[in-house]
Order: sequence, then structure tokens, then C-alpha cells
Amino acid sequence: MSRKIHLALHPYGVGGPGQHGLWKDPSVAKNASIDINYYIRQAQAAEHALFDALFIVDSQFINATYPAHYLNRLEPLTLLSAVATHTRHVGLVGTASSTYNSPFNLARRFASLDHISGGRAGWNVVTSFDTGASRNFGLEEHLDYAARYGRALEFVQVARGLWDSYEDDAFPADVERNVFLDPDKLHALDHVGEHLRVAGPLNLSRSPQGQPVIFQAGVSEEGRDLAAQVAEGIYAPGGGLEQAQEYYSDIKRRTAAYGRDPEHIKIFIHGSPIVAGTDEAARRREREIFEEDDDFARNLALLGRSFGAYDFSVHDLDAPFPDVAHLAERGGRTGAARIIERAATDKLTLRQVAATLREFRRSPFVGTPRGVADAIEEWFHAGAFDGINLAFRTEAELGAFVDGVVPILQQRGLFRTAYEADTLRGNLGLPIPANRYSRERQLVND
Amino acid sequence: MSRKIHLALHPYGVGGPGQHGLWKDPSVAKNASIDINYYIRQAQAAEHALFDALFIVDSQFINATYPAHYLNRLEPLTLLSAVATHTRHVGLVGTASSTYNSPFNLARRFASLDHISGGRAGWNVVTSFDTGASRNFGLEEHLDYAARYGRALEFVQVARGLWDSYEDDAFPADVERNVFLDPDKLHALDHVGEHLRVAGPLNLSRSPQGQPVIFQAGVSEEGRDLAAQVAEGIYAPGGGLEQAQEYYSDIKRRTAAYGRDPEHIKIFIHGSPIVAGTDEAARRREREIFEEDDDFARNLALLGRSFGAYDFSVHDLDAPFPDVAHLAERGGRTGAARIIERAATDKLTLRQVAATLREFRRSPFVGTPRGVADAIEEWFHAGAFDGINLAFRTEAELGAFVDGVVPILQQRGLFRTAYEADTLRGNLGLPIPANRYSRERQLVND
Repeated sequence: MSRKIHLALHPYGVGGPGQHGLWKDPSVAKNASIDINYYIRQAQAAEHALFDALFIVDSQFINATYPAHYLNRLEPLTLLSAVATHTRHVGLVGTASSTYNSPFNLARRFASLDHISGGRAGWNVVTSFDTGASRNFGLEEHLDYAARYGRALEFVQVARGLWDSYEDDAFPADVERNVFLDPDKLHALDHVGEHLRVAGPLNLSRSPQGQPVIFQAGVSEEGRDLAAQVAEGIYAPGGGLEQAQEYYSDIKRRTAAYGRDPEHIKIFIHGSPIVAGTDEAARRREREIFEEDDDFARNLALLGRSFGAYDFSVHDLDAPFPDVAHLAERGGRTGAARIIERAATDKLTLRQVAATLREFRRSPFVGTPRGVADAIEEWFHAGAFDGINLAFRTEAELGAFVDGVVPILQQRGLFRTAYEADTLRGNLGLPIPANRYSRERQLVND
Repeated sequence: MSRKIHLALHPYGVGGPGQHGLWKDPSVAKNASIDINYYIRQAQAAEHALFDALFIVDSQFINATYPAHYLNRLEPLTLLSAVATHTRHVGLVGTASSTYNSPFNLARRFASLDHISGGRAGWNVVTSFDTGASRNFGLEEHLDYAARYGRALEFVQVARGLWDSYEDDAFPADVERNVFLDPDKLHALDHVGEHLRVAGPLNLSRSPQGQPVIFQAGVSEEGRDLAAQVAEGIYAPGGGLEQAQEYYSDIKRRTAAYGRDPEHIKIFIHGSPIVAGTDEAARRREREIFEEDDDFARNLALLGRSFGAYDFSVHDLDAPFPDVAHLAERGGRTGAARIIERAATDKLTLRQVAATLREFRRSPFVGTPRGVADAIEEWFHAGAFDGINLAFRTEAELGAFVDGVVPILQQRGLFRTAYEADTLRGNLGLPIPANRYSRERQLVND
């Protein structure tokens, strides 16, 4: 069987980063981001199109300048649980912070979603780069990079330990023998580490896929290393074909270096296709969107987000980009460092930097259905991705992609024509991890 | 309109405390506690019967001696979100610990459930008495009573502050004026207290009921005082009519003493009705259940749970009840103190104490549909409760109550014949709390 492209859908409700004008689109409901029926419809559309997953991002800090969708949106795990019972195959991937959660509670919620969905849960592990978030969790200072990534790795290891608390045959529920639970198959983790102490056991058994799938989105050195160690899916940073290829080969190389099969980590790039009947119509639509979304104050605020919600409007817009390197350190985001480097290299003003950010968001997939399919195929064969995390502005634009581009990808053997499995692991081609205690038992018996 | 009885349903899956034999009942699915369809059916049955709420309890610590339902069950908020989209009127009350959660995350999850359900969320605030739970959250020692209850009060106050982050008209979404959010109507809480520091704002607006309903289950002095200050619903401890009356009048008195309307706190007793065609048949069924559930080792383990999962089996069963007062202090549970007092007063052996606990669980509502309705009416008019939190062993026993007892209560004008509202607050007769910032604005304008 030839390698196939994986597709995920990333709903942005009333408008994500840079989509400043989206809420004004008459086809977008003003309450989309808090309407569970919007998400159910998106998930069902994704499932109808045989996509691998619905992907829900998240954040824990806002101020009034944040993107419309961020201001007022449902929490990912409650959202996905509600979606779960209205779908049967599509994966349900939710973002949750390893910095601002406790492993016992979070492992339990994902395990619960995994049961509710019959083995379709995925956890996108983030360490939270909004410096303001720390103040919502009793901390005066944002944790630094090393502490956040150290904790993230340990957190995932603990979650996986908790998910194995029960061996798969722990509940014989044998009436004759009067044995509901076989107590030898319930295991406490008793984890004591640098960042976390968690005894266990978890009060929830494993789902049909064994454990929820771990996603991650590391860009920095620390982030890439974390991904290579524990991630099974990655959301890659934006950029052009070369950047995507560099990232892809780097992650696969690092994964192999940790002794893992590089096929067991699926790399998703972000894509916002614009599909129309002609190339001209697609380009026109792209320009329209660019104008609809133009809001200089909000672009400046978005730029500030990479520097700990810094207010750039205090600076002269037409002077050279200000010296904010100390804020990038505090915010700890690789994106910020990139912006500073670009500004220095190209000698950009603050106004130009804000404009550059917009260019960075340009989609490589704009054109007719065939043209978009061609570009996707080219990138795929060039080793730029395993999958695409697709964002659309409207339900109609999602429909245009599904009806126009997906059939072409299917005809070319690049995308499935039926789900391979009922679980997210099954559809992503990821193995079901054996329970660690059963494996030990097996090794002892061998 | 005469005062009506409120009813909630409390599903116990494969068997809660003392229901040691339930999982063996052929009509109980062996995976009931982790099957979302079981909970959806329970919720739909409760809604069909016009009950006020589905009530989901929770805990964070287990060992192999714990009740079958506790060993392996879905997390309440993911569970209730999944149930929400399959119901329209029934309230959705979930238990969550104020000791082992952060207010920002928990307030957000309940607000999310409140949106998903259209204003039907309730939070049962517990401080977690299982001493072992602390070891799942990085703590060596269980927090003492004062710290747990001090934190609980502050936690609820912070949650309510976060729930008011957006005034109800914060999102004009006015395309003409290009105003999605009115930034003057987004408020940071900036809470700094003894136990918690939370800046806010929450990234979620208010639901149709303003804020989720606060439930509580305090038995101790601290618990009763917490309830009187912030609870809008209470789950009362078990016991006979006199105990229920004492608790009811005490809570209502304390609530009034805090300057609150005692009508705005609804007191639910626990009830496990056994309904049959004749009194004899009901009593026979009661004895059958008593025998089915008899499991001395598990009763002893259940007794140990009140003393921090203490292993009583190391003691002579027929010697006087051992001196475990220091464990009650550590566990910090009023129930433990009561057991010690009863054992001393009646000079009971350990074996007798375990048996006494079982007697304590006897339902006052056993008999024909008319007999059970009579007893419920008697208790209600005697000032023992505002509502009953009903637990049934099987779906058939739930059906017998709904088909037999509910119509009699309706004929007598004691129970609704249609939902009064679409929100939990509306059906419980609780006011919608005005947003604190809108109220301030109103006061300034007056």
C-alpha cells in the first residue's frame, strides 16, 4: 500500500490569528466559537470527507486585542466529548497545556474522551507561550523554556504511565468466580521526578487504541527534541516548501536518533487552501480576504503576542524595528527570535515587520481544484509533510475543498477512499502501545 | 404555586459504596460505568421523567478494595458534555475537587459545559476526603480541614468572578460599526487571596443561566458553613427523618444568617427507593439486595475509607472497635467521628460497626408506589428536604419508580408535570445572578 496523505480539520469559528475580518462574513455565525453545533457540523463534515482528525487549539490568556475566536471559545475536552457521540471515525485532538495542568487530572480527561469516542482521542501537548497565562495560575513569573519543556517531557511520561494503570484484561467480571477486578492487574505508578510526583493508579482503564495519541508543535530546539522523544503527530511551523522540508527531515532524523521508527511520527503542516473555478478567481479571493482581514492595530497586537503581549503601539511605526530581544527571552518563543532576525537582516521598520507577518501566513494552496491538488502532491512527494492541518474560513470553503480537491487526491491514490480503522491510531497507521506491565509480564514469562 | 419536590438521578453504573453485588446482576452491563451510552440513557430517562438533574459523583484515589463503580469510571465533565447534546432540559451536575484543581481551568470547563448544554451545568464542590488523593497531586500530606475549606470558599468566589469576566452584552458583533467585542465589558478579576492568585479574565462568556449552579455536600461545621455561604444546592448526609430535619433546618438557618434567602439553597437527601407491587415484595427485594451486596471484606474496606483507606483487617473483628481517632483527624471526615462516637456509646465490636454502616444505608422509601409516595410526601411536609437525589440499582428499578411513584406525586401537586424552564436554575427556582460589573455600572448610573 502506497503512502497516503493524512488530513485534519482545524476550525477557527469567528476567526483565528490574522483573520480579523472573518466574524463580519455573513455566512459565519457570530457565536460560532461557542456553539457546539458549529463544531459538530465541522466534525461531521470532516468525517464525511474521511479526514483523520478534528484539531482544536487552545490558550489560557486573553486581552481585548486577541483574535475573535480566542476571546470566547469552548474548552477543548468538553467540546470534543460532545462531538464524540455525533461521530464514529474522525479523530478528536485537543490542545492542553502541560505547564498549567496536573498529570492525574489531565490524563484522566483524555482517557475519558478516549473511552467516550471509542479510541479516537489525541492530546496536543503545549507548554503555553503566552506569558500572561502564568498569572491565571498563581505564578508571578512565566516558567522559562527549560523548565517548561522539562516538565512537558516528564508530564507525558507520567500520563502514559497512568494510562497503563490497568492491564487490558484487568476486569474479568467473572460472576462464577465472583471476581470483578483482578487486583494483580492494577498498578500504581509511584512516579517521583524532577518536576512531578504522582502515585496513581488512574481510576480509568485503557480504550480500544490503548492510549490517546500524543501530538506536539515544537519549533525550538527543546520543542523539536520533545517531539522526537514522545510525539506521534506534529504540527509543523508555517513557511515555504524549503522550510517544511527542513523541518520534516530534521524531525524524522531526531526521531530515529532516539531509537524510534520515523514512520511513527506524522508531521502535519498548516494549510488554508483557497479553491475556486479558475486561478484568477482564487487569486482574487485571496486578495479579498487579505483586505477583509487588514486591521493594522490588530496585526500589531498579534505581533506583540510573540513578545509576551507587548504593546508595540508605543513605538514609532516607521522607525527601525525596536530592540525587544529581552522580551523574546522572557516570552521564550522561537517565532519571536525569527522576527528579530528577519527585521535585522532586511532592515525593516516596525510597520514592515507587521506586514511581513501577514505574508508569512500566505497559503501555498491557492487555485483550481486540480491546481491545489497538484501543489499538495508536489509538496507531499518532496518530503514536506505526512499530513495537512486544514483551516477554512467558512463552511462553504471547506465544502469546495472536500468536493473539489479530495476526489482528485483519491483518484491519484494519495488519499483514502474509506477509513482504515475505527481508532485514530488505526487511521494514522500508528501502533497500539502494549501495556507496560503486560509487556513486563510477557518478558518474564518468555 | 405550591412548593414542589425536586428530583435528581444519581447513576452508580456497576455499583457504588456498599453495592458490592450489583455488577453481578444480569441486567447491569459489565462496562456500564465507562459506557457513555449508559449515561445518555440514564439522562434521557431522567429527562423523560422531568427530573431536575443528573448528578455525577467523583473521586481521585482508588485501590483494589474500592467500589466497582469507583475503580473505572468516566471523568464527570467529559461525561456530562457528551450527555448534554442528547438532552434538552435535565440539569447536568458534576463533582469536582476544589483541592486538586486550579480555578481558571475548572471555571472554564464548567462554563464550557454550561454553553454546550444551554445553561444546565451544576458544579458539586468537594474538598476530597480520600487522604490518598494528595499523593496523586504531588503532595506528601493531605491538606487539613481548615486549609481545604478555606481554599474551597475562595475557589468558588474566584470561579464566580471569572464567570463574570464578560458582561452579557460584551459582544455586539456589530458589522456596521466594526465592533466585535466592546472592550469595556471585558474584566480582569485580579484576585489575590490567602490560597489563590488568579488574574483573569476568563476566555468564555456567560451562558443563559448566568453562572453554573453551585452544589455542595458539607456535613462538618466547616462544610455546613461553606454551604450556607455559597451553595445553591446541597447533598445532605444520610440518616433518618429526625437527622434530615435537623440538617435541613440548620442549613436554612445558617443560610439566612449569611443574609441569603433560604429558598435559594435547595437541600437534596439521598434516596434509593425500592418499589414493588406489594409491601411484602418490596421488603423481600430489600433483603435480597442486602444479601447480594454482603461482602464483609469490602464492607471493612469501605469502613477504612473514612479513616484514610485504613486497613481494619489487621484488628480482631470481635474485640471492641479499635482506637482510630487519630486517623479520623488525619482523614478529617465527620463521618469517621460519628462512627467512633456510635461505637463508644453502644460498645460495638469492629464487626458490629461494619454491620451498623450497612444499616445506615437503609432506604426510608420501600414499598408500593403509593406507600413510597406517602413516605416521600411525609418527609417533604415534615421539612426534611427540598429534593431527593435518587439512586437505583438497575434501569428497571428506575423505570418502576418513574412509572409508579412519579405520577402519584404529580397527582398530589408535589412534582412538576412539565419543565418550568430550559436551564437548571430555572427548574430549581434559583435566580440568575446579575453580572457583577453590570450591577456596579447600574448602581453608578442610578
